[in-house]
Amino acid sequence: MSPARLRKLRYAMVGGGRDGFIGAVHRHAMALDSRFELVAGAFSSTPDKAKASGRDLGLADERNHGSWQDLLADELKRAPEERIDLVSIVTPNHVHYEVAHAFADAGFHVVCDKPLVHTSEQARSLVDTVAQRGTVFGVTYNYSGYPLVRHACEMVRSGALGTLRKVIVEYNQGWLATQLDNKQAAWRTDPARSGIAGAIGDIGSHAEQLAATVTGLEIEAICADLTTFVPGRALDDDGNLLLRFKGGARGVLIASQIEIGCENDLRLRVFGDQGSLAWHQEDPNQLHYAPIAGPRQVLTRASAGLSTAAQQATRLPAGHPEAFIEAFANIYSGVANDIHARLLTGQPAAREQADYPRIEEGARGVRFIEKTVESSRSSTKWTAFG
Amino acid sequence: MSPARLRKLRYAMVGGGRDGFIGAVHRHAMALDSRFELVAGAFSSTPDKAKASGRDLGLADERNHGSWQDLLADELKRAPEERIDLVSIVTPNHVHYEVAHAFADAGFHVVCDKPLVHTSEQARSLVDTVAQRGTVFGVTYNYSGYPLVRHACEMVRSGALGTLRKVIVEYNQGWLATQLDNKQAAWRTDPARSGIAGAIGDIGSHAEQLAATVTGLEIEAICADLTTFVPGRALDDDGNLLLRFKGGARGVLIASQIEIGCENDLRLRVFGDQGSLAWHQEDPNQLHYAPIAGPRQVLTRASAGLSTAAQQATRLPAGHPEAFIEAFANIYSGVANDIHARLLTGQPAAREQADYPRIEEGARGVRFIEKTVESSRSSTKWTAFG
Amino acid sequence: MSPARLRKLRYAMVGGGRDGFIGAVHRHAMALDSRFELVAGAFSSTPDKAKASGRDLGLADERNHGSWQDLLADELKRAPEERIDLVSIVTPNHVHYEVAHAFADAGFHVVCDKPLVHTSEQARSLVDTVAQRGTVFGVTYNYSGYPLVRHACEMVRSGALGTLRKVIVEYNQGWLATQLDNKQAAWRTDPARSGIAGAIGDIGSHAEQLAATVTGLEIEAICADLTTFVPGRALDDDGNLLLRFKGGARGVLIASQIEIGCENDLRLRVFGDQGSLAWHQEDPNQLHYAPIAGPRQVLTRASAGLSTAAQQATRLPAGHPEAFIEAFANIYSGVANDIHARLLTGQPAAREQADYPRIEEGARGVRFIEKTVESSRSSTKWTAFG
Amino acid sequence: MSPARLRKLRYAMVGGGRDGFIGAVHRHAMALDSRFELVAGAFSSTPDKAKASGRDLGLADERNHGSWQDLLADELKRAPEERIDLVSIVTPNHVHYEVAHAFADAGFHVVCDKPLVHTSEQARSLVDTVAQRGTVFGVTYNYSGYPLVRHACEMVRSGALGTLRKVIVEYNQGWLATQLDNKQAAWRTDPARSGIAGAIGDIGSHAEQLAATVTGLEIEAICADLTTFVPGRALDDDGNLLLRFKGGARGVLIASQIEIGCENDLRLRVFGDQGSLAWHQEDPNQLHYAPIAGPRQVLTRASAGLSTAAQQATRLPAGHPEAFIEAFANIYSGVANDIHARLLTGQPAAREQADYPRIEEGARGVRFIEKTVESSRSSTKWTAFG
Repeated sequence: MSPARLRKLRYAMVGGGRDGFIGAVHRHAMALDSRFELVAGAFSSTPDKAKASGRDLGLADERNHGSWQDLLADELKRAPEERIDLVSIVTPNHVHYEVAHAFADAGFHVVCDKPLVHTSEQARSLVDTVAQRGTVFGVTYNYSGYPLVRHACEMVRSGALGTLRKVIVEYNQGWLATQLDNKQAAWRTDPARSGIAGAIGDIGSHAEQLAATVTGLEIEAICADLTTFVPGRALDDDGNLLLRFKGGARGVLIASQIEIGCENDLRLRVFGDQGSLAWHQEDPNQLHYAPIAGPRQVLTRASAGLSTAAQQATRLPAGHPEAFIEAFANIYSGVANDIHARLLTGQPAAREQADYPRIEEGARGVRFIEKTVESSRSSTKWTAFG
Repeated sequence: MSPARLRKLRYAMVGGGRDGFIGAVHRHAMALDSRFELVAGAFSSTPDKAKASGRDLGLADERNHGSWQDLLADELKRAPEERIDLVSIVTPNHVHYEVAHAFADAGFHVVCDKPLVHTSEQARSLVDTVAQRGTVFGVTYNYSGYPLVRHACEMVRSGALGTLRKVIVEYNQGWLATQLDNKQAAWRTDPARSGIAGAIGDIGSHAEQLAATVTGLEIEAICADLTTFVPGRALDDDGNLLLRFKGGARGVLIASQIEIGCENDLRLRVFGDQGSLAWHQEDPNQLHYAPIAGPRQVLTRASAGLSTAAQQATRLPAGHPEAFIEAFANIYSGVANDIHARLLTGQPAAREQADYPRIEEGARGVRFIEKTVESSRSSTKWTAFG
Repeated sequence: MSPARLRKLRYAMVGGGRDGFIGAVHRHAMALDSRFELVAGAFSSTPDKAKASGRDLGLADERNHGSWQDLLADELKRAPEERIDLVSIVTPNHVHYEVAHAFADAGFHVVCDKPLVHTSEQARSLVDTVAQRGTVFGVTYNYSGYPLVRHACEMVRSGALGTLRKVIVEYNQGWLATQLDNKQAAWRTDPARSGIAGAIGDIGSHAEQLAATVTGLEIEAICADLTTFVPGRALDDDGNLLLRFKGGARGVLIASQIEIGCENDLRLRVFGDQGSLAWHQEDPNQLHYAPIAGPRQVLTRASAGLSTAAQQATRLPAGHPEAFIEAFANIYSGVANDIHARLLTGQPAAREQADYPRIEEGARGVRFIEKTVESSRSSTKWTAFG
Repeated sequence: MSPARLRKLRYAMVGGGRDGFIGAVHRHAMALDSRFELVAGAFSSTPDKAKASGRDLGLADERNHGSWQDLLADELKRAPEERIDLVSIVTPNHVHYEVAHAFADAGFHVVCDKPLVHTSEQARSLVDTVAQRGTVFGVTYNYSGYPLVRHACEMVRSGALGTLRKVIVEYNQGWLATQLDNKQAAWRTDPARSGIAGAIGDIGSHAEQLAATVTGLEIEAICADLTTFVPGRALDDDGNLLLRFKGGARGVLIASQIEIGCENDLRLRVFGDQGSLAWHQEDPNQLHYAPIAGPRQVLTRASAGLSTAAQQATRLPAGHPEAFIEAFANIYSGVANDIHARLLTGQPAAREQADYPRIEEGARGVRFIEKTVESSRSSTKWTAFG
């Protein structure tokens, strides 16, 4: 059935108030395909700010709450036909666990920003709850929503690269090269809110997930060197890792927020024994493919043989660039497909019809952060990942 | 007032049914910022297809019409609080005039795709009607909605380039290099539906408008060479123009749909006596600026000194790419600002608060097509534009 | 036979003294492969400067002359085993004719910079003289010496692009955007020394030759718009041309020296009905090939199927960039092959063994300049080339 | 004094015979500026091949030797006015030490390819010998000869980047992704000829030297992961390193020969607390500079403020690309300056007049290889470099 003929899914947002950045991105992404409708929210941990933010967004007062606890209590009282289908959690990291746990436990579908939670213990608890409730839980590793990232996945799966040998993944930023005083910088560099990691949690986690998604490789061991360059900062702002994958592939992962001149310079290179791929987030509409024989090719969304997975993730003819919000929207599109499948059939959607990062990926990401920090503190070269 | 606190504007769409391309783009663009709500439509000239398309989009049957005439008649009967604020016209070109004229004449705001109409006579009539009714009329020259295009405009206005000397604008495509049998190709190459021009109308008009918007220059004379390369095609599929601008600047305009390997390769270069700018639609998040002294600079949305016009047209931190749909949405955002200003104050918005291509630009675009075809048929070098 | 086992060819240089630019380039290019030996010269029209320049270069006094007439007279007196094989003429344009004519008429092989001479009448006279003497005469259209340009020629000849439809060639420079006072600028903007054309002669001629070499197309008619932007300048500093080729292909040629930010931005795009090629002189080690089916390819000197012509023009493994001097040296290498063939066999080398621009190309280039100037002054659209 | 007025330096070559690659590069580089003259050689360890190669190059039989020992003995007998000034050693690695030692010990100037020798013990011995003899000894770390690399050095020295924080240097190749049977592959993958390291010695050594040259940083500790991917290969073909520099900067070094699609993809990024630089060997005529405030800049050889060091290393106007051979020639130009200074004054040239990699850099490179291999075999994270 045409997605547009289904009713819009009702959602509430937790976090994402007036001076946030990522909340507005989620709202744009959810709006793009007209499949979601914002009906409730608790947009800040400060009640006044929460309500002012909700009014900005045109929410009715009765569904515009000063705290997520009030929001949850109110939703549970509402009739099914007006109750939210899902909650989108876009708070700073330290709030993720309790909100996600409470809503999932109450039977709501959840989309939560990354990194999922602060500890693997929390992650396990959340995974268990979601499993028990049988609800949808998506994690917005948004970069995996780009059409050519999805095509890269398919190429690897199809064997076009042969046996994988090496992965180089980088997320280079420069905006924290000096001490900043804005809200975005403040919570990301505060252990109480950001967790045990700085750059490696904020963007290294994206790099890890992108590499894992495209390659399907599992990390066997990590050798990390995390550094804090800016005086007075409590968390790492630069991280460099050697990786060993199960099966023998090798990797390098770089995540830094002190590299002046870099904006959101996320790059992935994957080398197999039959070919290689390279992709760059700031130029996301090209995928560079080098087969072992023959010249390098520049694949676009127009390329013959573009995989179904990529085709389903694109809205425009090639050459009309698609970008960040569209990739983000693809994550939500997968979530919507899964929720609608359950509404219509009582069963989850088939995986290929609902391509979004699951809670298990979020949990693996938490483990990645923990093991990276452990390795960085160790004088032993390799810290086992398993 | 925060735009989100204003009520959503109600719109109807004419055209944009099941196998169209651009209708869906308009809908995504209008959805992105949650400022518009689709409430009615006549999505095809074939009644059955029109209604099936409307059902796909979740329209209520009573507002899902088999013809634009039915749509208009129905809207005129409705109460103001449910009546549409505007109509978005996304049909093939030959339908633009009668639909736009009828809705504008009935006092509705209109957004219409380009090229506006088939003849300058139609354009004049439409300009007059809109002037008499005092309604909003936007033309979706979408490329002028990119943030860095807006910054380029501001740089030229500020004198950063000095006196302009030369403009090179190109729109290179390859998708019509052979005879195609799909709907998109069919109407674009049919004089009855596309008008007197093929490539020069479909994409040359974008090139003309982009150059005019950024430079502010007015064409004085045209020397055009239009060609039809694909056998059996009735309209030009390749056009090359020399331009002379008032004040002495020179130009080259290339618009082609037979350049294999090109997707939507729209490029603009502007040279003044103090510096130059270059921008490329397929890599829209960079603006290349070369001052007469000092090295070339790569401007992004993060650049210090980014103009207010560009800042207002961006939704994301730099490095997170923005693209085609967002640029398109910026046109609609300007339209929404203008309509809301009128709703709230009874007066049009100030130009800088409502940046969208007006009907006069659409009319100039029609004249550009006519003069280009006239020049191409002439053995005299220069055909006056005025 | 290995070229290195042949004796070095003895050459004299006319022009190329102390503050010249291109003379040194020719000397580097001739030195690169150790096949030429500088033994004599008349490096300036000013005798003192000529001799000082020759001393800088280590020439013996007896072969270091104050004028080209003295040089020629001296060479004619010398024994065959010390006499020069060829003269390299690197003077400003206005001197080319008399020097080239005198040396060719005396039976010497000649390499001459472009544009060849000032008028087609001179060109015809020179062609006749060379034909009568049976000597080698090369014109340093150096850009056609790049390996990937040679590969592009072979691809066109092989039919990889199908029937050619369109050519876009540009040579964008910015160094003459203001009035300059150096020697390089002075003679290039002086009609007495540069001829009837400025930018179109200096760099437009390279663009014309590059396009002709790669495509093999012959110009049928020209529509030119030449402009002088810098006040007080006597010759054009910007030129834009529409081209019609025999057989129906169309073209655009841009040559400008007022485009701030451009250095030596020579670009060629060739479109056929089966594919396209794009090449850029500032990034000369890549050739972009788009077949009508399949993704764009980035060809390098390592590409499988690299043509023999390209292989013969390369000295390094791919990825080790080759550049301007090497391309220049390839022209001289062709000249050396032709001279050595005559020395060894009494016959010219086969064309494919001696790939360099011949005097006929130089003569066509002169005609191109004349016809472009004629067209620019005409109010008729098309000026026949033939 | 103009370099060209000095007599040409006489050189012999050891290695570089018929099927070699790098010998021809050295000869082109030495020929380019007409400052060297090949007068003798022993071009192979196989006498017949040595002599055949010398004849190809036009050497007189009496100076064309079957072994380097014969060459040395013969030179020592010759009169000073015909004796070689220097020897250029371009053999496989395992021959470097004995040849270099013998010629240096005999008082000849030497240029030797990298890596210098097999062991630090050999390196120390060679350093001592050169110090005792007071001769010139250059190591052809050719990438440090590029003009914009030299400008990068000057920018770092001048403080434009502030305190350095991070270095990422990569040398990505793909040509050894499979087992190859040619000579170039054979000796590079044979421990007896290549030494204890494969990729890390062949190209990792270039990466180390490039980073050290530009940054001036000294490595404090290494954490290396070397891998052999191709079955049956005895040496590493892929290496990934974390680096710690004295003073607190961090680094990543990647050297691989199994990365399909990469040719000679040597890249350097340097980040300080005030700005960053990025340079790419395959696009060597651009240097990307991002100051902490203001947009990214694309520096070229034409940029205002180009350092003297860079100006001295360039032969052409910007936009005319310079490349690998020219950079190589700049190393030899420094050597020539140093030898000529000694010939004319009896004293070495000032460092800034003779910019070439010295024997101490070669020795440090040997240590880098040893410590990298040691680290790769260690289970301790950091192996001290000192």
